[in-house]
Formats: sequence, C-alpha cells, structure tokens
Amino acid sequence: MGSSPHDSYPPELSPEEQEYLLTTLNDWSIAHGLAVRPAPSFVRPDQDPAGVLAATAPVTLFPSLFPRNCFEEGLAIQTAYNELYSAIARDEDWLKGIVEELVDIDDFVGKLWQTHLAVKKEGYVQDLSLGLFRSDYMVHTDQTSPSSSSGLKQVEFNTIASSFGGLSSQISRLHRYLLSIDAYPSSVRSIINEEALRQSKSASSLAQGLAAAHKAYGPSKTGRSLCVLFVVQNPERNVFDQRHLEYALFEENSVRAFRLPFEQTLSHTKLDEDRTLLYTPPNSPSTTYEVTTIYFRAGYSPDDYPEEKEWNARLHLEKSRAIKCPSVLTHLAGCKKVQQVLATPHSPHLKRFLPNDQVASKVLSTFAPIYPLDDSEAGQEAKKLAQNVESASRYVLKPQREGGGNNVYRKAIPTFLEKLPQTHWPAYILMEMIEPPPLTNAILRNGELQRGGVIGELGVYGVCLWRNGVDGKDAGQILENWEAGYLLRTKGDQSEEGGVAAGFGAVDSVCLVASGSTGA
Amino acid sequence: MGSSPHDSYPPELSPEEQEYLLTTLNDWSIAHGLAVRPAPSFVRPDQDPAGVLAATAPVTLFPSLFPRNCFEEGLAIQTAYNELYSAIARDEDWLKGIVEELVDIDDFVGKLWQTHLAVKKEGYVQDLSLGLFRSDYMVHTDQTSPSSSSGLKQVEFNTIASSFGGLSSQISRLHRYLLSIDAYPSSVRSIINEEALRQSKSASSLAQGLAAAHKAYGPSKTGRSLCVLFVVQNPERNVFDQRHLEYALFEENSVRAFRLPFEQTLSHTKLDEDRTLLYTPPNSPSTTYEVTTIYFRAGYSPDDYPEEKEWNARLHLEKSRAIKCPSVLTHLAGCKKVQQVLATPHSPHLKRFLPNDQVASKVLSTFAPIYPLDDSEAGQEAKKLAQNVESASRYVLKPQREGGGNNVYRKAIPTFLEKLPQTHWPAYILMEMIEPPPLTNAILRNGELQRGGVIGELGVYGVCLWRNGVDGKDAGQILENWEAGYLLRTKGDQSEEGGVAAGFGAVDSVCLVASGSTGA
Repeated sequence: MGSSPHDSYPPELSPEEQEYLLTTLNDWSIAHGLAVRPAPSFVRPDQDPAGVLAATAPVTLFPSLFPRNCFEEGLAIQTAYNELYSAIARDEDWLKGIVEELVDIDDFVGKLWQTHLAVKKEGYVQDLSLGLFRSDYMVHTDQTSPSSSSGLKQVEFNTIASSFGGLSSQISRLHRYLLSIDAYPSSVRSIINEEALRQSKSASSLAQGLAAAHKAYGPSKTGRSLCVLFVVQNPERNVFDQRHLEYALFEENSVRAFRLPFEQTLSHTKLDEDRTLLYTPPNSPSTTYEVTTIYFRAGYSPDDYPEEKEWNARLHLEKSRAIKCPSVLTHLAGCKKVQQVLATPHSPHLKRFLPNDQVASKVLSTFAPIYPLDDSEAGQEAKKLAQNVESASRYVLKPQREGGGNNVYRKAIPTFLEKLPQTHWPAYILMEMIEPPPLTNAILRNGELQRGGVIGELGVYGVCLWRNGVDGKDAGQILENWEAGYLLRTKGDQSEEGGVAAGFGAVDSVCLVASGSTGA
Repeated sequence: MGSSPHDSYPPELSPEEQEYLLTTLNDWSIAHGLAVRPAPSFVRPDQDPAGVLAATAPVTLFPSLFPRNCFEEGLAIQTAYNELYSAIARDEDWLKGIVEELVDIDDFVGKLWQTHLAVKKEGYVQDLSLGLFRSDYMVHTDQTSPSSSSGLKQVEFNTIASSFGGLSSQISRLHRYLLSIDAYPSSVRSIINEEALRQSKSASSLAQGLAAAHKAYGPSKTGRSLCVLFVVQNPERNVFDQRHLEYALFEENSVRAFRLPFEQTLSHTKLDEDRTLLYTPPNSPSTTYEVTTIYFRAGYSPDDYPEEKEWNARLHLEKSRAIKCPSVLTHLAGCKKVQQVLATPHSPHLKRFLPNDQVASKVLSTFAPIYPLDDSEAGQEAKKLAQNVESASRYVLKPQREGGGNNVYRKAIPTFLEKLPQTHWPAYILMEMIEPPPLTNAILRNGELQRGGVIGELGVYGVCLWRNGVDGKDAGQILENWEAGYLLRTKGDQSEEGGVAAGFGAVDSVCLVASGSTGA
C-alpha cells in the first residue's frame, strides 16, 4: 500500500502553531457554548458552589478523516432506520417475544415491560410517539482484503436520550472556523478544506422534531399554556448540549421548554382526570402548563432508578396524554437484544418491519454479525466462538442491558464467561468486532492535550413522529421522518501503547476523504 | 414623595425563583459567551494550565432601572461627542497647550506627547484616524430640588480601549431572554417588559467601525492579504469581550483580525520602507499580512509600559501607515485634563470645537463642573473647596493620568492633599460628585451573589472615522460618525453598610422608566 498524504494526518504542529490553535479553540468554544461543566476531579464542587465555571468540551483539534461514501451512506439510510425502529416500537407482540427472553436476566428490561403493561391496562391515551434517534456506526476495514474496501457497520441504535446533538453542531462550526482563519497549517489544505467539512444540523433539526410533536399534540382543551418537558439528570455536566436544543426550540420554533430533574417528577407534575400532564414550575407555583411532549434525557439507565419512586415517576409520565420521546415501547425497541436478533445471520426479522427488499438490504448491509448466547443454533455457534481465545479475539461481548459500558473485548471474553454462571450468559450478545481504520488525532479534554491513535464513531440522528394506531385505526402512519444531522465521536484506540486514553472521547466533525485513503 | 412600584425593585425572590433565575442565567451565559476567564483568586492558574476554564461574567440578575429621557439623551448626543473629540484630536496646537500643563507632572502624558513629536518629525503617513469611543455618564439627581429632576452627567470620555462592547450586547440579550421565559416574577411585569428593555448593538456596531477603517485603508500596494491587529494585554481575563468584536468583524464584515500581545509587537511586526505595517503571525512564519488598522486594547495605562521597549513599540506602531484606533493624539484627547478644561465653568474651549451653538449647549448640559488645581482663577477656587472637609464632601479628586482608579472621594480629599506636595496638585482635577439615584440590584460575581445598593454608569459607544488633514488638505473631514450601542455598568454604591462590594461591578442592561420614578 503506497503512502498518501493522509498517512501523516493530522500534521505535527510547531509550538507556535499549537499555541495559536489551542488559544483560538479555547476562546471560540466558550464564546459559542461548546462547553461542559467541569468534572469534579478537575474542579471540586466546593470550589464553585454557585456553579458558574465551565470548561471547553472534550474536542478534537482536527476534524477526523472519514470515508466520504460511508458518511453519505450513513445519512442516506437514516430514514429507513427511523421507519424500522418505529415499526418495531409499534409491534407489541414481537417486542413481547424479545422481552420475554430477557425478563429473567435483565431486571431493567423487565421493569420497562411491566411499565408498558401497567399503562396498557388503563389504556394508552396518546397515539403519537416521537423518536429522536441516533444510529452509531464505525467504519469497518476488511483487513483480509487487499483492496481494503471499507463499509459502515452499526455499533448500536439509540432510541432514548441520544446525546451530543447540541455540541455536534458547534464542533463542526468550530472546525470550519479554525480552517477559515488558517489555524491549520497550509500543508494540509489538500485534505482539510471547505468541501471536505460538513456542518451538522443536529441542534436545529432535533429541536424541529420536538416542535413537530409539540404542534401535533394540538391545542390545550382547557386553554392552558403548552410546553415541552426535558426530563433530566441532576446534576448534568453535559447541560449545554441539552440547552442548545432548548434554545433552538425556543428561538427557531417559539416553543417553551422546562427542565425537570427526573427524581422531582412527582413533586411538580400531575395528571388531570383525562391524564393530561400538568407541570407547575417550582419558581412559579401559580402557573400550570400543559405538557405536550416529554423529552427523556434521563431514565435510560438503571442508575436513574435507585428506588421504586422513580419507577412510579416513569409510569406516571408514560400514562399521561403527553407525547413521549420516547415511549416505553420505543425505549425497549432500542435494547441490544433487538439489534442482535435483527443482525443474527439469516434472521427473518428485518423483512417483517421493512417489507421493501431494497430498503431492507441496504439496512442489512450495515449490520455486523451479532450472535445470541442462548440455546438456539446461532447461540451454540456463538458459545464456541466466545470460549476460544483465538476466535474470541475478533469479537466483543456486550450486555443487552441499556446504559452503555461494561463491554468485554476480544481475548478477555473466555475468562469473563468462565466466571459467569451459564444462566446469565443470555444477558449478553456476541458481536463481531468492527475493525476501524487506524487514525490519529489530538484530543483536548479536562485541560489536557493528548495525541495518538483514535477511532471514530459516526452517529446519525433521525427524527420520526408516528401514530401507534390505538384500536387499530391509522396504525403505523408515519407523520414525520427525516435525517437530522450527525455526530462524530472520537476516542482513544485503547492500544496499550499510550496516547489518547480510553473513555468517552471527544466530539469531532468529519473531514471527508475518498474511501480507502484512511489507514492501511 | 409617594411610594411607587419602583421602590421595591427588583423584587425579592423566593428560593425557588432565585434557583430558577440563577440556573437559567448560568447556563445561558456560558452557552452565549457572556463569560470571563476566572480570577486567579477563584481558580489558581496551576489548576488549569491549558486555560480551558471560564466563568459567567459579573452580571446583574435584573436590568437596572434607568430614566428613559436620560438614556435617549445619551444616545442622541453621541455623534456630537464623536465630532468634538475628533476635532480635539486634530488640533495639535490646542492639545499642545493642554499637554504642556501636565508634562512635568504626568510622565505618561509626556511620553505620549514625545511619541507624537517623534512621529511628526518623520512625518505622519496615515491621514485617517479611527475612534471607537465610549462616553460614560451617571444620572444626577439634584437633591436640593423638590421636583427631583434628573439629568445625565458625564463621568469620563474614553478614547482608547473602550471595553465591554462585546459583553454588553450579550447581557442585554440575556435580560431579554430571562424576561421571555418568565424567569422574572410576574409581579414586575409592569416594570420589566419588552418595551422597557433595550438591546445593545455594540458588538456588531463597533466591529462595523473597524471594518469601515479597514476598507478606507484601501488595497495593499504589494498584493498582500490585509488584516486588523488587536493589540492586547497578556493574559487578558476579559478576552471574550474582545473576541465577540473579532467574530463580528469576521462573520459580518469578512475582515480578518489577529491578536498581538503588546509586548510582542517588535517581534512580529515590521515597517516596510514606506512604513506599511507588516505582521507575520508566529504560527505561520511564511505568511505576512499588511495591517490596515491597529485596535489598541492595551497601551492605555502606564502599567503597559514597564520598560523603554514598550515605548519603542508604541512609536513603531504610531509611525506606521496603518490606521490607529486611536492615534496617539486621539489617545491624548481623552486625558482628563481635556475633559476638565471643557467642563470648567465658563470655558471658551467647547465653542472652538463645536461651532454650532445648539450642539455645543447640548454637550455642555452633560458636563459636571470640573476644576483644575492650578493657579488659575478657577484653580484657586477649587483649592479652597478641596481643602475644606465640608465643601470637599461634594467632590471627587481624580488624577489626570489615564488608566482609571486612584480616585479620592469627598471627605478624604483634604487629608490626601495635605500629604501631597503642592507642585503635584495640578496632576489632579476636582469634579463635582454626581449624585445618582439610589438603586438596588443583585450581582453575580466570581460565583458569589450579592444584593444591595448599587449605582449605574451608562456608557454610550461611538464610532468616528476622520481625516486629520496632513499638509492642511481635507482637514477635518469626517467620513463616518455614528452612535454604536450602549453599556450599563453597575457597581456597589460603596456605602459602608455592606451589600454589594465596591469594585469593577457588573455588566447590566437598562430597564427604562419615566424620569423621576427611580429613587427619591
């Protein structure tokens, strides 16, 4: 494989170039809200009791190289994914089958399902559902093929609390700004240029999705002021990401939103007789708003439910007439078991939800093979792959539970499974590792600059508003369906040789290149 | 005097109201760059070596009450002030007389004058001058008059480094935003409402002033890229204020600007044979820009000139062909001695510069009486006033030197003068204290919230671009002259009873009310 200008991307910087880039970046980011509240390890909370300090969000100094065809494929396929997951969320019977396989293993999925059943018992009173989705991919480079062709492979599909849509719009603006003021050395102009960068419209587009639901809710029957409710964690370091959506919702769509810490749900909201959701802001006890749309930025992880109280809160919200983003069934549609059964080789399921063969095959091409660890034929095969150190090295073991983290990688899988009772194995899925092209970048995080090997994860946002079809009428009618911008998230490549530390990584934007010109 | 709703402004907040207001304000301010780098007493520099932390700028929670007629008067008179100070800056002979009175007392003024003489010796090569001015006022309430009529009285006129134009645009947006989301209790809706608030256009308008100079400079004779140079202090905590101008200059006017720390002037700039100013960014040694306009945000205070090197740097810049904002003569025109001789009762000077009587009398009405402490008739009178504790209590003693601070107030004046050799007295002027109406507000600063008595200072920005008339031709032609938005700066009222601490204060915006309805 010949050397290409991309091999030395990003360029090494002289001390003066780095100083200029960092100073410009640090000032621009704060001036434009590309920020987070500082980690407690960086600023102790007692140092800033009023919470006035903020820091530049973890960002990459350069936009990362990304194959143009993969990027375009990811954006183009998003409406099909929106259709797929809205269809799954509407198919209670099918979901029931999925959930039943997990219910003894994964308490969290079980509790979500019980919440659905409890609402169903009283009857759903809101027929509309909103999804602000994000489909996450990595570029997969087939190392065995000499042509080194690359394709997009899905890592996961998020149906709840898809984050970074606010900051993503800002990081793509930042990288474009840095280009426009020549903060990047002129030697890389053949790579970083206006044509190669892509502005993410995510903040504006996701806000438009919330506004579409707000409008579809219709007028208040009692003449109350209407609002959207952001149900949030408290405290929230990533608050500016959420605020950018709130500001876009207000400024571009004239829709009011309030932030409600999830654990305070029952103190500040109540249900009317017809289950209209009423919100009384604590700062204004004499004003009661009618909630059109609940946007969950909390409640996606078991950690958000320390006590039964939080489950009551979730049920309370789900029972309401407000449009949920997402509903509990849509939340369940995002569990990894669903991704697994769709991506199990020769699975019949995809066709059920995407009857158009062409659309289905495009979606299928983005699946990496995923196996269950159960007693099915595929499961038996998977267990063999997972228990052998050699074959396991091409796989990752992921919990089916929501909330991220706790993945087990490659050669660590057999040992991990040895210690786990076999009855718990079905709580995990085995996924072929995606082999991303080796990339380099520099990440600024918590005031520390690290340079080294990184991997990039492309998230594509989607907005979908549909009718569930209570009582069978209008079932499955999709009212809105659009691709809503992108996120590039870049993390250390976890090589033991140092460089960029593993972890959350940084927000990033794409620098598009011809396929095959990234990495070997 | 009857009670009015304004007496209880701003309203007391319930803990929930305050929590909502502060949270909203803290998040909005960082999301929109209403920020400063934290003070070293708040965040030690070694805690954040990369400089990624920022804090909400010192702000008032509420827009402060301000008499509508005074506000409108301040804006309306700004173009006359621009005309006045550009005329002073062009009148070398007159300025010479002013400077000669100070030269033995005030080294700084003397050095500025020598800089002018040194440039003059070689000949000025740039005929255009730019002023980004700010005229600062307080509302003066005549306590002896039962009708309590109020008028605007000038505190000072800034001809160099007029700051806060960037943050002022953001604080007026913030207060409007807080109003629009009902963060202010509904009980004050009769006072704070859309109609009473005023958006400051300062960031955009000052940037437009720089762009006008940039354009008037004309094309490069050698085909070089053109730029504006912000000559700055280093480090600069108020960097976002300056960055907002830079971003507006770039985004709204397509003009590139660079930040050059004043002390690095001679390392990165040089003069061509025809004294074209060339700037080579340290991050890009192979690119040299031609500087159209020098915007001084440093060099206004003696502290910026620790060594002769900085005076050489100033001379170097002044000699250049770039348009200076301000030129050294314009800088000198802003010295307090000038304000004093204009405002000395029965002064003949104002008429010299503003031949139109109507215009002159409007400007005159904003002067508070100012006396010299010299051997003139007015000076003799002033010395008597200043040495008597009783009469001194209506005055403030201010150094004629630039740079602010070190004022001596009221009863402290006689003791101060006693300790000062009489030969140094002429370095000070005696100014009648402006008696602002008593106001209350809450200020958030360095993460601390203080509520108490405050005073507000209105700054009105002005842009003026003129020809000096080298060799007498085109003398005094004003090319651009406009009012450029406002700043309200609010500080503790220095009452010893606690409340808001004295000092810089906070950025604020106006809540206009009928005259006479603020304070007693």
